[in-house]
Amino acid sequence: MSDDTPLLAILVQRLSERAVLRDPEDQARYLSDWAGDRLGMPLAVVRPASTAELAEVVNLCGEHGVAMTPQGGHSGLVAGALPASDGSELVISLERLNRVRDIDPVNFTMTVDAGCILETVKQAAAEHDCDFPLALGAQGSCQIGGNIATNAGGLNVLRHGMMRQLVLGLEVVLPDGRVWNGLHALHKDNRGVDLKQLFLGSEGTLGIVSGAVLKLVPKAEQSRTALLGVSSVEAVIDLYVLARRGCSDLLTAFELIPRRCIELAMEATPSLRDPMDDAHPWYVLMEVAATGPVDLGVMLEQLLEQGMEDELILNGVLASSESQSQQLWQFRESMLEGQRLRGEHLRTDISVPISAIPAFVTQATEVVMAASPDCEIIAYGHVGDGNLHFNILPPSTLDDEAKHDHLHALEATLFEVLDGFDGSISAEHGIGRTKQAAYLSRLSPMELELARGIKTLFDPDGLMNAGRILPAR
Amino acid sequence: MSDDTPLLAILVQRLSERAVLRDPEDQARYLSDWAGDRLGMPLAVVRPASTAELAEVVNLCGEHGVAMTPQGGHSGLVAGALPASDGSELVISLERLNRVRDIDPVNFTMTVDAGCILETVKQAAAEHDCDFPLALGAQGSCQIGGNIATNAGGLNVLRHGMMRQLVLGLEVVLPDGRVWNGLHALHKDNRGVDLKQLFLGSEGTLGIVSGAVLKLVPKAEQSRTALLGVSSVEAVIDLYVLARRGCSDLLTAFELIPRRCIELAMEATPSLRDPMDDAHPWYVLMEVAATGPVDLGVMLEQLLEQGMEDELILNGVLASSESQSQQLWQFRESMLEGQRLRGEHLRTDISVPISAIPAFVTQATEVVMAASPDCEIIAYGHVGDGNLHFNILPPSTLDDEAKHDHLHALEATLFEVLDGFDGSISAEHGIGRTKQAAYLSRLSPMELELARGIKTLFDPDGLMNAGRILPAR
Repeated sequence: MSDDTPLLAILVQRLSERAVLRDPEDQARYLSDWAGDRLGMPLAVVRPASTAELAEVVNLCGEHGVAMTPQGGHSGLVAGALPASDGSELVISLERLNRVRDIDPVNFTMTVDAGCILETVKQAAAEHDCDFPLALGAQGSCQIGGNIATNAGGLNVLRHGMMRQLVLGLEVVLPDGRVWNGLHALHKDNRGVDLKQLFLGSEGTLGIVSGAVLKLVPKAEQSRTALLGVSSVEAVIDLYVLARRGCSDLLTAFELIPRRCIELAMEATPSLRDPMDDAHPWYVLMEVAATGPVDLGVMLEQLLEQGMEDELILNGVLASSESQSQQLWQFRESMLEGQRLRGEHLRTDISVPISAIPAFVTQATEVVMAASPDCEIIAYGHVGDGNLHFNILPPSTLDDEAKHDHLHALEATLFEVLDGFDGSISAEHGIGRTKQAAYLSRLSPMELELARGIKTLFDPDGLMNAGRILPAR
Repeated sequence: MSDDTPLLAILVQRLSERAVLRDPEDQARYLSDWAGDRLGMPLAVVRPASTAELAEVVNLCGEHGVAMTPQGGHSGLVAGALPASDGSELVISLERLNRVRDIDPVNFTMTVDAGCILETVKQAAAEHDCDFPLALGAQGSCQIGGNIATNAGGLNVLRHGMMRQLVLGLEVVLPDGRVWNGLHALHKDNRGVDLKQLFLGSEGTLGIVSGAVLKLVPKAEQSRTALLGVSSVEAVIDLYVLARRGCSDLLTAFELIPRRCIELAMEATPSLRDPMDDAHPWYVLMEVAATGPVDLGVMLEQLLEQGMEDELILNGVLASSESQSQQLWQFRESMLEGQRLRGEHLRTDISVPISAIPAFVTQATEVVMAASPDCEIIAYGHVGDGNLHFNILPPSTLDDEAKHDHLHALEATLFEVLDGFDGSISAEHGIGRTKQAAYLSRLSPMELELARGIKTLFDPDGLMNAGRILPAR
């Protein structure tokens, strides 16, 4: 492991001693992701400090036939950026490519290195009264390059779209070490096939993004948050349509939260108190935000009034201050911690058409409960994106291995229900290794052929993040 | 021409007599586009009435080695959908694939055949109080399939994005006649490489789109329009930033119009009167739109007040009724007619970073005027997209051929200036045949290799809209 291969010796010589981590202790933090369920063993971890160094590393790997694992902030959930456990793959960390290259508050764009942390990017934008609107739980550690490779989603998709909608230009090191400069800061560009689209969401299998031009928006000057108690998922969907129509394009969040999540949040954060004096089967956490002269208070009040009149809303809390709003959002964050405290459980990030959410939740709940009467279902998500985290806590009576197998079987059951709604097994997290079998089994032969063809076109030697999304050759 | 080739005989047999147009008179309307500058001569025009028929046509063309020209509403501007003049290409018109398949006002989506006319789609959406936000001059004749193939832009890009942002799913007949069903109605989907992105903007060179799932938005309940007089392009850009910040995401249009265009509009539509009692070098036509309780009047008034205080706005008209608003938009439409009345001129659809618009306009005007002191420059466009139509009316003293050559030379001069700003020679209209030479000369060898590789992967025999974007092999 610490024995130098010819490649490592050359890398140390070309880059520097500190750019190549060979000591297992130094490597540790590059070998697990946020999910924590996998560990790999790399050949080494290399940390280039510029696009030129990155290109040299990729080029050398090609010459030596060494497989590469590009890595951002290791906050992935599908083991896509973790090295295999056989010591064959070189982890290429982008963390030293962390420069904000340029901000243009008139063009509403910024150009950044791929290793910039999302939070850093947001702060740099804020200094110009702008916002980079991608918002994720992991924003303090995830990197822009990873956000691009996985086409990240998060809490603001309803208003501002996914990463694909927020990227205007890319700089990419191709698997053969050539650098593609597509760093155009153009809001509109129709010159032939849009190459950058291929790198968005392909999880580093076609090349390593080294830089990007991102789209900014004016920083919101005001926002209002409400937490609403609702009797059924059907009513939540009716309320969503009302909100889309009543709040123009100023709706920033519309989150579905089941009662059980409110309880999990209070378990995880004992300072949280039940938000209303009565309990409700479902809650909606919604937010509107604006710049300029819009009375968001009136907007939300009118919506709530209408929702109550239509008997969609049973009760509600309208935050009247920034700290009250943060308290409402605390439920959304603490409920994740509450789930984590329960140990291994099934995490999913599926999507269906928004209109199908009620039928899907009903049918999936029935089927899963029939298969495993003692499990607990936690279904929450981003209603406006049709994106649900339909998660399952296993019966606590099972031992670790039995739990794992049980959850795996339940996932297959759940995905079969999903197929009936033409849903997606991965709306956000991607395929990586974890979702590969479920993904491949649903791919048509034609789709597999085209996906393989694109992979081969960009990476004929199959060294770039091999075995993710598609099987290694 | 009317002699049947084996392919035509089979097509008549498999489809029907009326599906195959062999008579030159019947073919006439398929042989010119909106620009009117090219005429082709096809093998025949075939009009399949279903995806299955379309697939059969494509399959048969493959068997007989016949090149195909997919065609929508022939409103293109780069000769991309016109057949070559040697009688070798079969025009495949999508006009009979014109069914609205489904509308889901809860999911805010609709599923349509590719041959649906944009206006029809917008009307169908309106029946459910929704809008399909793409808005183009040609919307009464252009087809959704063409909008997808060319990644259409238009007047609403600032608020709702280009066609790429408005498509959730596609059904495509591949060059080998297989049908790819990617008609998912999912707002979020992260399963591997997003194949549909390749068909968006590739101008029918990778396959023929036969159906699509489109994203809808709630229909705006109110809008306000203003026409503002401004002293310089610099001031227009400052005003744009002010408007982006002062109007939240409710800004729908922000159009730059030079004084000359106001005059051209009044020439074309004599009923139009000068909008203000004084003339200004530049005008901004802006619009805000909303659903729900937002006071757009107050929003615009505050913006205008601030713009006047900052000495950005010299004078302005705020429409106080729908008909007054239409009258302001009439200038935008009539100025196009006014240009057309002037005969052949150079039409461009370039883009630069928004912050570079003033410097670009200054430099391009200087360089063009130095090269051709008697020409007239008409530079207008969508400021929020960085997209300018920097058009040139040639000296009226030149004869037709000299005019043509002169404009061609001026285009090359203009594009060289554009290169200095890392701009795009085609922000909207695409490459087709007309822009091919300028496109190819700016492509890096690596980009050409990748573009060719993708083309070959999808269309190894090179029969699908051959010679558009990339040269035919």
